[in-house]
Amino acid sequence: MKVLITGGCGFLGQMIAKAILKRGELRGPDGKSAEVDEIQLFDHLVPVTPFSWVPQEGKGARVTTAAGDISDKATVAALVDRDDVSVFHLASVVSAGGEKDFDMAMRVNLMGGLNILDAARARGSALRLVFSSSLAVFGGPDLPKEVDDWTRHTPQTTYGMTKAFGELAINDYTRKGFIDGRTVRLPTIVIRPGAPNAAASGWASGIFREPLQGKEHVLPVHDGFYMMLLGYRSAFEGFLAVHEADGAAIGPDRTVALPNKAYAVAEMIEALERVAAEDGIKLGPITRKRDESVEAICGSWPLRMDDAKARSLGCPEDTDLDSVIRGFIEDFL
Amino acid sequence: MKVLITGGCGFLGQMIAKAILKRGELRGPDGKSAEVDEIQLFDHLVPVTPFSWVPQEGKGARVTTAAGDISDKATVAALVDRDDVSVFHLASVVSAGGEKDFDMAMRVNLMGGLNILDAARARGSALRLVFSSSLAVFGGPDLPKEVDDWTRHTPQTTYGMTKAFGELAINDYTRKGFIDGRTVRLPTIVIRPGAPNAAASGWASGIFREPLQGKEHVLPVHDGFYMMLLGYRSAFEGFLAVHEADGAAIGPDRTVALPNKAYAVAEMIEALERVAAEDGIKLGPITRKRDESVEAICGSWPLRMDDAKARSLGCPEDTDLDSVIRGFIEDFL
Repeated sequence: MKVLITGGCGFLGQMIAKAILKRGELRGPDGKSAEVDEIQLFDHLVPVTPFSWVPQEGKGARVTTAAGDISDKATVAALVDRDDVSVFHLASVVSAGGEKDFDMAMRVNLMGGLNILDAARARGSALRLVFSSSLAVFGGPDLPKEVDDWTRHTPQTTYGMTKAFGELAINDYTRKGFIDGRTVRLPTIVIRPGAPNAAASGWASGIFREPLQGKEHVLPVHDGFYMMLLGYRSAFEGFLAVHEADGAAIGPDRTVALPNKAYAVAEMIEALERVAAEDGIKLGPITRKRDESVEAICGSWPLRMDDAKARSLGCPEDTDLDSVIRGFIEDFL
Repeated sequence: MKVLITGGCGFLGQMIAKAILKRGELRGPDGKSAEVDEIQLFDHLVPVTPFSWVPQEGKGARVTTAAGDISDKATVAALVDRDDVSVFHLASVVSAGGEKDFDMAMRVNLMGGLNILDAARARGSALRLVFSSSLAVFGGPDLPKEVDDWTRHTPQTTYGMTKAFGELAINDYTRKGFIDGRTVRLPTIVIRPGAPNAAASGWASGIFREPLQGKEHVLPVHDGFYMMLLGYRSAFEGFLAVHEADGAAIGPDRTVALPNKAYAVAEMIEALERVAAEDGIKLGPITRKRDESVEAICGSWPLRMDDAKARSLGCPEDTDLDSVIRGFIEDFL
């Protein structure tokens, strides 16, 4: 079978691709495990040379890249070119990015999302499609700090609004039998490597990433600020667990809120200093420069999502922040 | 100012138009009352001769009709041709209709909805736009029978899914300052005159309408079946109350669930027989022919929506079913 990952050249996309490469197989549209012979990474920009983790010819699945605009219907239709395809739909304009460019958020997230759903539906094989949603479907001053599967979606960003729509659409396309859709609803994922992106939550990675590399991190929120986090290893394992789960175990509401826990900024810094001391890493400085727009967006999100369903499906949770930091050092430094 | 009503040739659209005609003025984008000089009824089909209630030239607002496809962006953009326009967006594929034709429901409800939002946004005058949503945003076997403003939307029809999206979009376009949007979330509205439509809830009007005219009604649900109802007079008055309300009183969640009450089929029949006896009307027969698909769709809806916000904004509630039936006899028979 083929695996198509939209937004596949991003951090999570690559992580999922690597994990599937290692596994070698996934459950196909018929629910039976099948060998993965191609992993296609679709993105708006793709590197000219293969990623370092892509294996030589002949070893495992072929990893290919395709560059294109997800808001173009024909481009997206051409990607789902077999009946035995599984899709991981991660392509998305992120939170602060969507606040800056409303039309792009609508085009990429909403129209792009419909394009991939319709491309999957056109195969007629009820193929598995895992959509990446976000805690940003929640928000507002009256939001309870703990939310569950019955809490109304009241997004306070266009990003969150389009993610809420995606969850609705995944449920409806699945109800109609067009696809076997599943939604993974993510907390803020840490620690993202590489350059900062336009997500309002970017600092929750930067606060670890930059100091660990001896660089300065400019922290836009106060030290008592809490964020609901999940380590990236648990995140991509959650994507795979949700893909592999029996449809009946997920139920008619196809959304699975991944395991999560809220940490204060002060706790993040303590964990960082603890791990750095163990490993003899000299940390770069964290300087404070509060940014009201970041605090407003991140502060509109809940601190806890009920994750009982995710745990029942085998989605892992983090042991603690220290292990997330150690994993990042191991994987990227 | 101009009032544009999409789906304006339908029952509720005409009711709203007549009520505005009688009033003569509405609050404009600046919040001040202004004279309405044009009411435009946009629909996919419009009658060749004016509606009987349309006044002669020179008396009050000019009532015009325009036929077109709401999923055509340019058509819709041309309708919002002044800065001082208020929009009532009622155009919609209905519940059972959307189940039969998914693509049409997406085109009309979702793309059509975005077209009217974007046409309004393009004026740059943050004009008032009242969107017609439905109790069908709720559903599913685990839905509590009483819902409130914090209950998650779990629609079980494509119709309900597109209405849930509309609520999200109205909130986001308003949050961005593009429009001053408001959503009226309707219970099942009774008693609709004329021919039955493709709504799964159509029987809740037919059970009164046909017998009152000496005709047979074929009832698709059992006598113990409950439905959340609102009389059409309260419904169109609710639309106007929500249009006229101060934006701040509505708050960042622009949805207002209209007043509502659940009645059993047996109660509906009792009220019908009571009013008919008073008026000396010989009723046509009600015959039973259960339809599982109708019971499944209507049974997925809640029986009570918290309507405190609607009542605080002055949206009227029904006194009882008898008065709704008497109103229908007065208005249509």
